[in-house]
Amino acid sequence: MRTALAQINPVVGDIDGNASVIIQHINIAREHGAHLVVFSELAVPGYPPKDFVLRKDFVRRNEEAVDRITAACTNITAIVGHVRSDGHGVGKGIFNAAAACRDGRIVASYAKQLLPTYDVFDETRYFDRGNGPCVVDVPVENAVVRVGLTICEDLWNDRQFEGRRIYGHDPIEDTVKAGAEVIINISASPYSAGKYADRETIFAAQIAALGVPLIYVNQVGGNDDLLFDGASLVLDQTGRVLARAKAFDEDFLVVDHMGGADHRIEPYPERLESIRQALVLGIRDYFRKCGFRDVVIGLSGGIDSAVTAALAVEALGAERVLGVAMPSRYSSKGSLVDAEALAANLGIRYDVIPIEGVHTAMEMSLTSQFGDLPAGIAEENIQARIRGSILMALSNKFGSLLLTTGNKSELAVGYCTLYGDMCGGLAAISDVPKTVVYDLARLFNQSGDKPCIPEQVITKPPSAELKENQTDQDTLPPYEVLDVILERHIERHWPIDEIVNLGFERNLVSRIVQMVERSEYKRKQAPVGLKVTSLAFGTGRRMPIAAKTQS
Amino acid sequence: MRTALAQINPVVGDIDGNASVIIQHINIAREHGAHLVVFSELAVPGYPPKDFVLRKDFVRRNEEAVDRITAACTNITAIVGHVRSDGHGVGKGIFNAAAACRDGRIVASYAKQLLPTYDVFDETRYFDRGNGPCVVDVPVENAVVRVGLTICEDLWNDRQFEGRRIYGHDPIEDTVKAGAEVIINISASPYSAGKYADRETIFAAQIAALGVPLIYVNQVGGNDDLLFDGASLVLDQTGRVLARAKAFDEDFLVVDHMGGADHRIEPYPERLESIRQALVLGIRDYFRKCGFRDVVIGLSGGIDSAVTAALAVEALGAERVLGVAMPSRYSSKGSLVDAEALAANLGIRYDVIPIEGVHTAMEMSLTSQFGDLPAGIAEENIQARIRGSILMALSNKFGSLLLTTGNKSELAVGYCTLYGDMCGGLAAISDVPKTVVYDLARLFNQSGDKPCIPEQVITKPPSAELKENQTDQDTLPPYEVLDVILERHIERHWPIDEIVNLGFERNLVSRIVQMVERSEYKRKQAPVGLKVTSLAFGTGRRMPIAAKTQS
Repeated sequence: MRTALAQINPVVGDIDGNASVIIQHINIAREHGAHLVVFSELAVPGYPPKDFVLRKDFVRRNEEAVDRITAACTNITAIVGHVRSDGHGVGKGIFNAAAACRDGRIVASYAKQLLPTYDVFDETRYFDRGNGPCVVDVPVENAVVRVGLTICEDLWNDRQFEGRRIYGHDPIEDTVKAGAEVIINISASPYSAGKYADRETIFAAQIAALGVPLIYVNQVGGNDDLLFDGASLVLDQTGRVLARAKAFDEDFLVVDHMGGADHRIEPYPERLESIRQALVLGIRDYFRKCGFRDVVIGLSGGIDSAVTAALAVEALGAERVLGVAMPSRYSSKGSLVDAEALAANLGIRYDVIPIEGVHTAMEMSLTSQFGDLPAGIAEENIQARIRGSILMALSNKFGSLLLTTGNKSELAVGYCTLYGDMCGGLAAISDVPKTVVYDLARLFNQSGDKPCIPEQVITKPPSAELKENQTDQDTLPPYEVLDVILERHIERHWPIDEIVNLGFERNLVSRIVQMVERSEYKRKQAPVGLKVTSLAFGTGRRMPIAAKTQS
Repeated sequence: MRTALAQINPVVGDIDGNASVIIQHINIAREHGAHLVVFSELAVPGYPPKDFVLRKDFVRRNEEAVDRITAACTNITAIVGHVRSDGHGVGKGIFNAAAACRDGRIVASYAKQLLPTYDVFDETRYFDRGNGPCVVDVPVENAVVRVGLTICEDLWNDRQFEGRRIYGHDPIEDTVKAGAEVIINISASPYSAGKYADRETIFAAQIAALGVPLIYVNQVGGNDDLLFDGASLVLDQTGRVLARAKAFDEDFLVVDHMGGADHRIEPYPERLESIRQALVLGIRDYFRKCGFRDVVIGLSGGIDSAVTAALAVEALGAERVLGVAMPSRYSSKGSLVDAEALAANLGIRYDVIPIEGVHTAMEMSLTSQFGDLPAGIAEENIQARIRGSILMALSNKFGSLLLTTGNKSELAVGYCTLYGDMCGGLAAISDVPKTVVYDLARLFNQSGDKPCIPEQVITKPPSAELKENQTDQDTLPPYEVLDVILERHIERHWPIDEIVNLGFERNLVSRIVQMVERSEYKRKQAPVGLKVTSLAFGTGRRMPIAAKTQS
């Protein structure tokens, strides 16, 4: 059986556009002599379609698109992910489905059985569970191949929570028992750093145990916070990788699942490089899918804005990026020099807009209220908010996407100003811990012809420069320490006691956890942030605000 | 059987505090001679505990609190809502449970069977389904009463989606079949306008059909966006209301479910008054549970800030409220007069901080970028952001809660400035359509000794006053029209065609829907808003941003 893996990048909600791309790939697959062409999970509406699924006209239009796609499947079978409505029985009557389309007919339809409802996933909000396997005969010359349809989480049936197996059954095993000679899995599996290795290991173990080959087609592209890494796979019945599509890019791969010579096995990038590519894809797709014309970034001379700018240049090209330095009375000369050098190295447009005039005017406005009270956080935030307002004025005036430059460590502990440096449409590195921001800076400097991020930006002590002689470590532990505590607390939900057992002082751990919990209100109002860790702030973390915290 | 309904207002996450309140009410119930005392759903952790439930130490502490509560149940049975962990079987092993506690033992435990996962609810994210009814013998003098335990959604088992019944079985019927002589339902049922009547109708119909009485204990209080209205109920076996606790306030009601003389039936407020009381409760509880000292509100002289200020005064007292007028070159004299009159009528502190100085300084800063381009939205937003920054400076300096004053209609169509008038910790009226804001203003003016909101504020054409001679209706249809379209589109998910069929022009409906869809990025960054309609922006509406929309 000759199979085409169509690893496309759908736009969420763009049913007509996605259907056109699907039909186009069906035609290409036919030209390649494929018997079967496979698309990713919910390819017609794009994944995740979220509350669009609650609109009956949206579901109807998505089903009409499937009809058009089906009509295009002459002499080829296509497996197409879509939202299926079903008038029978009890429940929502809405399924996350894979249709097998051939010669104008939906010859079989599978409904996803394992519906992830944790982290960023809300599938039981939208879908009913399918109630059994689906094996479809695919004509191959004068024979048929019995192909078992499954969707994404079905392959992750050994998922655990606190050491317990979450799901009660294994849809893959059931599909093989139902006679499948090949397992198809259509997927939209969001990237996080390191997940890829787990994915191949988990898939290979199941496939080897069941003794049937796997054709796995994953979505690629950025959809808001979620970054889909593609890297679609073909495994033989022993679990060995026969073919792998590109990571972080669209791809089209034609394979013969029974083996054969000429299969591409694209490399999967190592961890840090995968983070970089994921962020580049996320920026590019958010920008493109929202229809922006260019990007504006505030350049402080610090490492966060430097890495954000470098990512933006890689995603969109230097000509689309404007860097703006906004020095204040507390800005060091070095910061302005560093910002200018960075802009020059990257070849981006660069402006300097000093904030002293507005800063002084704002102080005068507040004189009668603030009186002789000592300066504090309020005064620091004023400066950050003036900068945010200037950047938003440029964004509004020129239709630019403002990229926020805050990292995960500072967003975690609230070391950022709401409506100040948190302003922006997309938070490019808000899920990147500060220590990894440094790693990315070094990676950028190693990978180009010459270093683009001035060495001084990497080596100087990080500072918000909102008062005299300020550095981040006035109030925070070293980032090497902070990031370990944050990772255990946020991504792994470890109790304070267990974090202390790693060898940290209890007072320090408690203080950090308290800072995280007290900053929930800020994160509530943060822009969409690109997810690269196993647990990002945003849709994957749902915390109460007016709550008593543990610390 | 003498039963106490303990309608308490738990703080989410405050396990120790909530447990103390529960034990206190157990003791009071015993003093009243009650055989049984009933608390609301998840009373120990508070509802909704959200991702706290993912922390094993949180679940452990909540179970330890249940042990302490159980130890306090001497000679009385208490029904206590809590998170139950369970080491057996497949699944998360976490349940939304009701424990029947007596004489130091948990004599029975029920796990909720119907787990709402729609709108603001994410219960399958956290909990496994219970698998059957639980009937417990409650000792009453020398006999026992067989009491059936159920939780919230179990009573809403006829819930529909698009005309289909969602749930496959009826836990209430199963409980009666298992021998229950009385149904207990512990609940945390969020308020929306008009929901109360549905609730009594639905409950009464089921109870009458099954022929057993109902004791229904609902949570009261505001927890972030969700407002719980209490109004706990006792229905006799015919579905007749025997007793009703207060709406929007804590209450403690002792009843004999077999009838009896002296039962209180508190009135439930009519629709508009219920909205007012819900908002007052929401402001008060967010303020109190977050630990703020006072409140600051920007007073524009318009109706939204006037109603927000009136609500804040009712919630917290005039002495805790500061109103700040921030006139610009475009502010009418009338606006300042109206703001001042409002502040005087309400008896709140009042300051005027003109923004001209900062406005001019900001324009000068942007001269080189903006050049001779005609003024537009960017220039308007600058003014709103200066005001937002001033209010946030006061909030940061004095620890005040900034209340955002935007209404649902303008938030829907994006007629608001991100980081400008959208600044704040809590959006008091962001789920109140503009037409209802007017109704609330009139209600306030009718209900006090004398009108608090100047008549001029109600009668003048609404305007953002961000440029010369601006009114909302320059770009929007009349609010009476807008609000009807928005309600159909947002709360009911109606297709454009069906809205047009109400008699509106297609161009108008399409334009409004498009405005709603293009403003999703603003709402992503909006503060917590108090939910009073059947579908509010926030946790109940989950939309993609970088998406192709329908219009």
